[in-house]
Amino acid sequence: MSKIRRRQFLKGVATAGAAAGAATLAKPAIAQGRIEWRMVTTWPKNFPGQGVGAERLAQSVGVATDGRLTIKVYAAGEIVPPFESVDAVIRGAADLMHATPYYWPNKSKALNFFSTVPFGMTTSELDAWVNHLGGQQLWDKIYDQFGLKGFHTGSTGVQMAGWFNKEITGIDSVKGMKMRIPGLGGEALRKLGMTTLSLPAGEIFAALQSGALDATEWVGPYNDLALGLYKVAKFYYWPGMHEPGTHTETTVDKKKFMALPKDIQLTFEACCRNENNLLTSEFNARNGGALETLIRTHNVQLKRLPNDFLQAYGNASGEVIQEMRDGGDALTKEVVESFLKARRDLVNWNRIAEQGMMNARLLDYKFPG
Amino acid sequence: MSKIRRRQFLKGVATAGAAAGAATLAKPAIAQGRIEWRMVTTWPKNFPGQGVGAERLAQSVGVATDGRLTIKVYAAGEIVPPFESVDAVIRGAADLMHATPYYWPNKSKALNFFSTVPFGMTTSELDAWVNHLGGQQLWDKIYDQFGLKGFHTGSTGVQMAGWFNKEITGIDSVKGMKMRIPGLGGEALRKLGMTTLSLPAGEIFAALQSGALDATEWVGPYNDLALGLYKVAKFYYWPGMHEPGTHTETTVDKKKFMALPKDIQLTFEACCRNENNLLTSEFNARNGGALETLIRTHNVQLKRLPNDFLQAYGNASGEVIQEMRDGGDALTKEVVESFLKARRDLVNWNRIAEQGMMNARLLDYKFPG
Repeated sequence: MSKIRRRQFLKGVATAGAAAGAATLAKPAIAQGRIEWRMVTTWPKNFPGQGVGAERLAQSVGVATDGRLTIKVYAAGEIVPPFESVDAVIRGAADLMHATPYYWPNKSKALNFFSTVPFGMTTSELDAWVNHLGGQQLWDKIYDQFGLKGFHTGSTGVQMAGWFNKEITGIDSVKGMKMRIPGLGGEALRKLGMTTLSLPAGEIFAALQSGALDATEWVGPYNDLALGLYKVAKFYYWPGMHEPGTHTETTVDKKKFMALPKDIQLTFEACCRNENNLLTSEFNARNGGALETLIRTHNVQLKRLPNDFLQAYGNASGEVIQEMRDGGDALTKEVVESFLKARRDLVNWNRIAEQGMMNARLLDYKFPG
Repeated sequence: MSKIRRRQFLKGVATAGAAAGAATLAKPAIAQGRIEWRMVTTWPKNFPGQGVGAERLAQSVGVATDGRLTIKVYAAGEIVPPFESVDAVIRGAADLMHATPYYWPNKSKALNFFSTVPFGMTTSELDAWVNHLGGQQLWDKIYDQFGLKGFHTGSTGVQMAGWFNKEITGIDSVKGMKMRIPGLGGEALRKLGMTTLSLPAGEIFAALQSGALDATEWVGPYNDLALGLYKVAKFYYWPGMHEPGTHTETTVDKKKFMALPKDIQLTFEACCRNENNLLTSEFNARNGGALETLIRTHNVQLKRLPNDFLQAYGNASGEVIQEMRDGGDALTKEVVESFLKARRDLVNWNRIAEQGMMNARLLDYKFPG
C-alpha cells in the first residue's frame, strides 16, 4: 500500500502548510535532563493500526522513562511530506520516524526484506530471522550507512490479495488487467502481463466504480472495511502472496540513540518490541471481526486465487528476488542470501508446525463454539 | 510437558536442599530505593528456551530500570519445588515466578486457556485474544482471587505430536497404546482408548528403549534433539494438536507490583512483552535448524497423523472443552466462551491469511535458495 499513501499524504502537505511552518521553528526541548524527540510518521493522524501504534509507542516510552524521554508524534505532512521522513531524520529535522523500510528503495532496495517479500516469510518467521538469525545485524549494516538505527514495531500480518471486478479464471485472464499495487509484488505482476499503477486512497473508490481500475489491493479486512471498497468491487481475493506480513519500523538517528543513558536505550528497545507484539496482535484481532462483518453484513464474495495463477506469480516473484541477488551490491546479496536461508528452514518447520496444525484444525470434527 | 518436568524437578529438590535453606533465610533487599525481587521458576538452571528466557527477562528489567528493580532468578528446587512456585509467590517466599499457567489446575482449571488448548489457537491468535479481545481481563479475574498478576513471556509455538515406536495407521491402532503426555491433550487421548502417563525427562529415553512406553511427546525439534529421543524412537509425528502454542507466564504478587512506581510498572510490562516476542521467535528460529539436523543427520522419519485419528482426536478435545464449559464455575464458563468466540473469528481469518499464504507457498514454482 506504499504508493497509494504516498500521493494521499503528499496531497495533505499543502493544507498542512501552516502547521508545518510552526513545527519547523520549534527546537527539541531539553530541560532538567529531559529529552524531547520529534517523530515523523508516514501515516495520517490516528490512522487505524499503524498511526495509533505510533502514538501508543510514544506514550509508553514517556511513561516508562518517567518523562525523561518524551516523543511528540507528527502525522504525515505536518513537518515533512511522508516520503521525506527518512531524509528528515538524516538531516535532523526530526529525531525518529514511524514508517516501513520498503518506503526507502532509493537508500537501498534491500530494505524491502525488512518490510515484506512476495512469497517470503510470515510475520513470526520474519521475527525469527530478525531477532535470532542475523536479520537485525544486516539491517543495522544498511542503516549504519545513513546514521540510522531501526526497530520493528508491529506488522499488518498477511494482507489480502485485493478487490477485483473481473474474475481470475487462470493465468491468461489477468493479462491486461489494470490493478493498483505497489512494491516487489507489483513488479512480479507486471511480468505476468498486468498493468500496475499507484493511486491515492481517496481515488481508488471512484476508479473502481468507473471501471478505470479492474482491481486494487489495500491491506486487510480491518482497514479495507473502513475504506468501503466492498461497495464497488465484486470479489475479494486471497491469499495475499505479495505482502505476507508487512512490518513497520521505528527508526532513530543512531548518534542520538547512542547518546541516551543505557537504561533509556534498553527501555526504548523494550517498548518497541512491546509494540511489535501489540500492533501485530491488534491487526490479527481486528481482521477476524471485520472479515465476519464483510461477509455477513455486506455479502462480500471471498475467492481464492487459482493455483496456476499462484504458481506463475511465485515464479515471477522468484525472478524478482533472483535479479536483486545477482544485480545488487555485495550487501544486498548478503541480505538476500541470509533471508533465503532462514526462509528455507522456517518453511520446512512451519509446514509441519503452524501450517500443519491449522490445516488439521479445519478437518471435520465436533468442537464447541 | 508439564508432568514430566514436575517429577524431574522434584527429584532435584533433595540435592538442592542446602541452597534452598540458604535462600530461605535471605530477605528481599531494599536499599537506596532499590528493590530486589526473587523469581522462582519451574525450569532447571539455564533450561534451553524457557530457562534462558527467564534470565534474559530478569536482566532486561535490571538494565531498563537502571538497577532500581533487580530480579534474582532461582531454578526449580532452589527455593521451593517447581510445582509449589505459585504458592511460594502467594505466601511471599518469592515475589514472582516464571512458569506456565496450566501448571496450576488446582487454582483454576480455566488457567489451561492461558497456556494452550488442544485444537485451540496458535501463538499469534492467543496473543490477539489476550492483548485485544478480553483474554487478559479474564486472566486477571482468575489471578485476582489469589492476589496475583500475570504476563505472557513467550511461547514454544506448535509442539510436535511426539515420538512413536508403533505406527498410527488409524483410530483403532492407538487403542491400548501407552504414551507419556500430560494436560488436556492427554485427557482427550484417554477418551480414544490410549493409556497416558507421566514420566520425568531422565526416564523417557530408557522407557522407550525397553518398550515400556510406545510413545512420548516432549516439545519440538529444538528441545527434542537435545534429549536424544531420535535414538530410541522410530517415528516423529506431526501436527501437535495437543499444544498448538504453549505460553509461558511471568506472574507477580499483585500488591508488590501495584506498589512499584508507575514508570517501573510500565517498564516491567514492556520487558515482559519484549520477552514474549523474543522467546517465541527464538523457538521458531531454533526449531527450523534442529528439524533439518534431525532429518539430514539422524535420518528421523517424519510422519503425519492420519486424518481419521485427527478427527477423532478433535472430537475428544471438543468434549473436554465442552465439559469444562458446562461443569465449571461461572468464571470458567466465561473464559471458555470468550476463548471460543475469539477462536471462531481467528480461525476464519487465518484460513485465508497465514494458513492460506503458507499453503500457497508450498505450490510448485521456482524460487531461489
